[in-house]
Amino acid sequence: MLCVGLDPDVARLPSQLSGRPRAIFEFCAAIVDATAELVCAFKPQIAYFAAARADDQLEALIDHIHTNHPGIPVILDGKRGDIGSTAELYAREAFERYHADAVTLSPYMGKDSIAPFIDYAEGTKGVILLCRTSNAGGSDLQFLDVGGRKLYEVVAEMVAMQWNSRGNCALVVGATYPEELARVRSIVGEMPLLVPGIGAQGGDIEATVRAGKTSSGTGLIINSSRAILYAANGPNFAAAARTAASETRDAINRFRAN
Amino acid sequence: MLCVGLDPDVARLPSQLSGRPRAIFEFCAAIVDATAELVCAFKPQIAYFAAARADDQLEALIDHIHTNHPGIPVILDGKRGDIGSTAELYAREAFERYHADAVTLSPYMGKDSIAPFIDYAEGTKGVILLCRTSNAGGSDLQFLDVGGRKLYEVVAEMVAMQWNSRGNCALVVGATYPEELARVRSIVGEMPLLVPGIGAQGGDIEATVRAGKTSSGTGLIINSSRAILYAANGPNFAAAARTAASETRDAINRFRAN
Repeated sequence: MLCVGLDPDVARLPSQLSGRPRAIFEFCAAIVDATAELVCAFKPQIAYFAAARADDQLEALIDHIHTNHPGIPVILDGKRGDIGSTAELYAREAFERYHADAVTLSPYMGKDSIAPFIDYAEGTKGVILLCRTSNAGGSDLQFLDVGGRKLYEVVAEMVAMQWNSRGNCALVVGATYPEELARVRSIVGEMPLLVPGIGAQGGDIEATVRAGKTSSGTGLIINSSRAILYAANGPNFAAAARTAASETRDAINRFRAN
Repeated sequence: MLCVGLDPDVARLPSQLSGRPRAIFEFCAAIVDATAELVCAFKPQIAYFAAARADDQLEALIDHIHTNHPGIPVILDGKRGDIGSTAELYAREAFERYHADAVTLSPYMGKDSIAPFIDYAEGTKGVILLCRTSNAGGSDLQFLDVGGRKLYEVVAEMVAMQWNSRGNCALVVGATYPEELARVRSIVGEMPLLVPGIGAQGGDIEATVRAGKTSSGTGLIINSSRAILYAANGPNFAAAARTAASETRDAINRFRAN
């Protein structure tokens, strides 16, 4: 259930990579190669590449994953969302330029803003919608009372009941709020949940797995970024990342079984 | 009050530009130069550039606007939104890479996801939050009943009362729904509203201006993209865009005065 988030902060790259023109790609590819055996997905966060003018390195990274680790899906984390004609362009960005297998999106603009992603390539791409996010301010809108339920619960039900006709939708629910994760699980049945917030953001693995897994012990994509990427800063950074990923994977699996 | 939206669809560029390596930049720069006298802002939509791997042409375009038409703000339309540490990277993308003067953002993740944009450079950048969008599906979430009010009204009040402490916030309210534009105006006082949806999307200029202007006849940024960009497809495309922009500007001003 472990997903490694690829959020390459240029200020935190290992010193031996500093000054190299493709340092971001080299860093992320090393992390990918060291952790691929341990993960169910990789999740590059596009902001880190875009802010560094490293769009081409993101393209190369996703190609690297597909070529060297076939079968591991890539979730492009961009949280896009726009009206239909523009959403089609964002779908092209994600699926034709970057060759992502799934994307994160904001639900605020409604189903027709999501349809170009849901329907892309006969519904073979994953569409992961923000529901209950891991930040404190997430409650500003997501906790608004909508007829006795919170907005994030209404979003969960809307996606599960109305938007997911092709069966390729999932939701983002932060690990920082296990009770709400359990609420969402009770609403959406077997739908996969992408769960950020363990590790640097403080979410507890045991509580996350117990609250979020399906009755058959599946249905979670648990993301860790910084705790794995920056496990060590020296020449051993990739080995340290592998160790951190392995420990996280084992912790997840311990609570997954029972 | 006219804002020209720069949504360069590569399939619709004038034929004399086809095959040129910087056709997107050349097209948009010609539109900019032809319409700059008539506008209060330009709004490039980043999806159109990203899908075409034309990030560098977007950089060049915004530099072109700042260099040749100083004083006209550039709104980078990306509708980003993420947790604080990632939002800082999106702020860098918008303000340091692209040198935008304002951005569009989604409010779904709450105030702390917006703070890095609000506080950037002492609050000197514009932050334009989605409120009531111009697409039909916008009502899926935005019309949910929150204690007797619709979600978009609650968002309008939240931004006006709680998020706008620096006075640099604005809202997106579609021209396709003039009654809701009037509702938002009544909630937010003098706050600027970015209004897409006239032209190709069918919004009515008179209804938009009457519903959305402040008591002093200001406060609107009315966007038109396709109706101006693609006013003609031949060698005269820029002149045709200027004519279309001029007519739109004049129509706006007619209803602005009375």
